Amino acid sequence: MKDVLDHIKKTIGLEEEDEVKEEQDTIIVPEHSFYEIIMMKAKNLDDFDYALNQIIEEKTPIIMDMGYLERDSPEDFKLAGEKLKAFRTKTGGEAILLCKNGKNTIIITPPEIKLIRK
Amino acid sequence: MKDVLDHIKKTIGLEEEDEVKEEQDTIIVPEHSFYEIIMMKAKNLDDFDYALNQIIEEKTPIIMDMGYLERDSPEDFKLAGEKLKAFRTKTGGEAILLCKNGKNTIIITPPEIKLIRK
Repeated sequence: MKDVLDHIKKTIGLEEEDEVKEEQDTIIVPEHSFYEIIMMKAKNLDDFDYALNQIIEEKTPIIMDMGYLERDSPEDFKLAGEKLKAFRTKTGGEAILLCKNGKNTIIITPPEIKLIRK
Repeated sequence: MKDVLDHIKKTIGLEEEDEVKEEQDTIIVPEHSFYEIIMMKAKNLDDFDYALNQIIEEKTPIIMDMGYLERDSPEDFKLAGEKLKAFRTKTGGEAILLCKNGKNTIIITPPEIKLIRK
């Protein structure tokens, strides 16, 4: 009886099942991968806006030196601060000051990446 | 003839194939997901060793304030620096100073997460 079944299986094409197995072997890549952290200096408001957009669009965390902006154009620096506040409330992302003392470096992360304080 | 094939398919159990289909529908989660960046203060060498281990084992980037270690135990601070150098050469990970001026904050990333300077 077994032989008959084997023959039947062959005739109706067990290959289908093999194909399915192969499909299962394919690796599924996650929609977003977080393999990059960008480090940059915001020398003007355009730099800052570009960065904020990157964080929202590409889900890339950015470590940004705001020192230049603070020194060279305090008005834009203030504006950037307001944009950051809006970013945090609107997206649930985070912006944390890493160091003051002239350098004024912050890290900004999209809501998908959590900053854990330990 | 088709009816016969259908009957044969039933008798040898097409259910198998259905099960395989279901398996295909399951979502495959990537081995590592990079949804966290840890922020911590290294108050002693144990803190530092724990952090370095987290980076290697869990692939989690860590932003670490080394200021305490530098002030309170310069010897351990020096030792930590050597361990960082070894970590970079051995794993290909990165360690970059974000700010000096007393705070001495660094970011350390596993080789899987690239720090991009812009």
